[in-house]
Amino acid sequence: MTPYCELEKEELLALKQELEKQYEDARGKGLKLDMSRGKPASEQLDMTMPMMDIFNRDFDMHDEKGVDVRNYGNLEGIWGARRLLGEMLGVDPEHVIVFGTASLSVMYDTVSRSVTHGVMGSTPWCRLDKVKFLCPVPGYDRHFAITEHFGIEMIPIPMNEEGPDMDMVEECIKDPAVKGIWCVPMYTNPLGITYSDEVCRRIADLNPAAEDFRIYWDNAYCVHHLYDDRQDTLPDILSMCRANGKEDMVLEFASTSKISFAGAGISCIAASLGNLEWVKHSMTIQIISHDKINQLRHVLYFKDLDGIREHMRKHAAIMRPKFELVLDTLERELGGLGIGTWTKPLGGYFISFDSMEGCAKEIVAKCREAGVTLTGAGATYPYKKDPHDSNIRIAPSYPTLEELKVTAELFVLCVKLVSVEKLLNK
Amino acid sequence: MTPYCELEKEELLALKQELEKQYEDARGKGLKLDMSRGKPASEQLDMTMPMMDIFNRDFDMHDEKGVDVRNYGNLEGIWGARRLLGEMLGVDPEHVIVFGTASLSVMYDTVSRSVTHGVMGSTPWCRLDKVKFLCPVPGYDRHFAITEHFGIEMIPIPMNEEGPDMDMVEECIKDPAVKGIWCVPMYTNPLGITYSDEVCRRIADLNPAAEDFRIYWDNAYCVHHLYDDRQDTLPDILSMCRANGKEDMVLEFASTSKISFAGAGISCIAASLGNLEWVKHSMTIQIISHDKINQLRHVLYFKDLDGIREHMRKHAAIMRPKFELVLDTLERELGGLGIGTWTKPLGGYFISFDSMEGCAKEIVAKCREAGVTLTGAGATYPYKKDPHDSNIRIAPSYPTLEELKVTAELFVLCVKLVSVEKLLNK
Repeated sequence: MTPYCELEKEELLALKQELEKQYEDARGKGLKLDMSRGKPASEQLDMTMPMMDIFNRDFDMHDEKGVDVRNYGNLEGIWGARRLLGEMLGVDPEHVIVFGTASLSVMYDTVSRSVTHGVMGSTPWCRLDKVKFLCPVPGYDRHFAITEHFGIEMIPIPMNEEGPDMDMVEECIKDPAVKGIWCVPMYTNPLGITYSDEVCRRIADLNPAAEDFRIYWDNAYCVHHLYDDRQDTLPDILSMCRANGKEDMVLEFASTSKISFAGAGISCIAASLGNLEWVKHSMTIQIISHDKINQLRHVLYFKDLDGIREHMRKHAAIMRPKFELVLDTLERELGGLGIGTWTKPLGGYFISFDSMEGCAKEIVAKCREAGVTLTGAGATYPYKKDPHDSNIRIAPSYPTLEELKVTAELFVLCVKLVSVEKLLNK
Repeated sequence: MTPYCELEKEELLALKQELEKQYEDARGKGLKLDMSRGKPASEQLDMTMPMMDIFNRDFDMHDEKGVDVRNYGNLEGIWGARRLLGEMLGVDPEHVIVFGTASLSVMYDTVSRSVTHGVMGSTPWCRLDKVKFLCPVPGYDRHFAITEHFGIEMIPIPMNEEGPDMDMVEECIKDPAVKGIWCVPMYTNPLGITYSDEVCRRIADLNPAAEDFRIYWDNAYCVHHLYDDRQDTLPDILSMCRANGKEDMVLEFASTSKISFAGAGISCIAASLGNLEWVKHSMTIQIISHDKINQLRHVLYFKDLDGIREHMRKHAAIMRPKFELVLDTLERELGGLGIGTWTKPLGGYFISFDSMEGCAKEIVAKCREAGVTLTGAGATYPYKKDPHDSNIRIAPSYPTLEELKVTAELFVLCVKLVSVEKLLNK
């Protein structure tokens, strides 16, 4: 393959003409596909359907501790659910509170509580002139949306292959206005990489100027491996922080949204007892207890971490060919052309693509024009502003393999076309 | 019966001796009963158990609009759930958003959002020197806990037989710092009365100085009648406000916590489209979608308002004898003694008891000492301060009839004993 940048103008013009023809053909197909979000596929959801058989009208709705899960009570969640999610995160059940369906809400509430009531006794952020968060980029748009919603200034931290640029993180936290960092440490959204042990070590050893600085450790993809034989690993950040005498510095979040049912699973926070007391201070005002019926349903269905792992192997069997199809298409069609780079994750929900500078918005627009919705370009950056206009998050989970084939081919076509136009306009 | 206040000192002393003996006997029984919260009884929860049969592994998990309830999406809740809860409140589905399990959380979030972001574009309350709420008393302790949590000053508004003292309400809302009023309009907590049409008319016609004043209309007991033939009725406040050109002034809340499962039902807000847009402005940051599986489970189980009513008739069959047992005991043991008054509700979860001034705390303490936990005296007032120390909330739902008999008898005994002591110490 000749890299596009080495092509003569006439070659580029001829290529453009050919690509435009292909694009017109594609547009004529009247596609209507959505690859914008990390939604599980129907087949994945089907796999959890036996969970619907767990209960019936005659079932004894008491948990192992004798709690009637149909009535009020147990603010922290039933013991079995704390144990199950704790096991998934490698954390003792005492350090886990189980909530309702959405870890996103738990994170939102945590930021909201910090704004109105401060963190474990610190000054409420609403009384401070300036509050800042570190945002490794590219990152998860919904994290950035929370901090933006509360008027928190976001500082982008470049990601490298091992995680966030820790030199920069260590420098930034000298500012007492910096109160947090968003982390998706494993199979990160959208890169798909996992923080290295060294990065985790440096994170657990941070020495922030702000005593109310918290690491928002969103371990959303901790059991979401694609392969049996090649899996990333992540150390337990809570015990690392505790070993450093900084057990209050980290708040870990997770849910089963991408394990059981999206938006109907169970979620949790794992943290020091001090942080949990702080969480409960508001929680006890906010709710009497979360859905313990659904908690018990999950406990009885998955039983333990082995049960979750077994279940996730079935998910992987569906996800793996989708990832491979996209990666194969990218390699086959774009390999060697010098117009894009991409990640090759071993788990999670996303592939991250970087186009030539200044092309991402146009590629996404071209795809949409032909009927394929991608995550908006820029979404992976705070304020939706990608300074290089190059990052595109690819979410291969939801479409069928057939749809994905069409989508991936349209995508590489749009990348080529927009890149050629870019080179011609240089 | 001779009223206690007409007894001579010697008679009171003799009575005291006799009551103390009875109390010691009671204390010796080693009771351990909890009548502190409005928890449904196990028998009520049993009635909803067929809901556990609604789904099975082969069920087609799509709603009437074709939505896969197992996946993300539908921020506002599935259409069927909006229709079902809308029907229950007499409101169009378009004006209803269905949430997770707890209307308490929806109310908390609404106040929290007002504090951090203001109400439909108004100044966020955290930037104001003073924010006040009107609190009809006696009222619901968890309402007062929310406003207290956010540092909102609470102004007690006396309740009369028709609802809150509207003269006082109309006077108070001339203060632009007054931003809301907590209302449980039907079978109110703890009085059990229902706001009269005239009170509702005056509420819907309020002319508050603050444009961001909202009526928090917590319609928690809208279908919780005890009798078929004697039922309170409540007009639809939303349409009354709309008719007055004040459709944005009211936020209505409800849930099925005391219909299906406590803490595992579905909840909603009903309001003007303007208010709903405001709610969604934060909600879209906070969560992707609530538990639509549980929403569909409720829709398919109850089907419509008739289904809910039929179900609630079964609840009433359990609740009615409990209310009657307590009321009969109060009447039989305290009638004519002039040491207490109480309400005789036609629905809801509570009976409100007023002792002689300055006796409530001591009555509750005496009951606890003998093994029966009541709602803390004062809990029905802001800051837990009952200026007369007289109101006690009786929650007869959770104990069995046998337990309730013991409890009610202990209660009247403690009322007598504390009243005699009070009269002797005058």
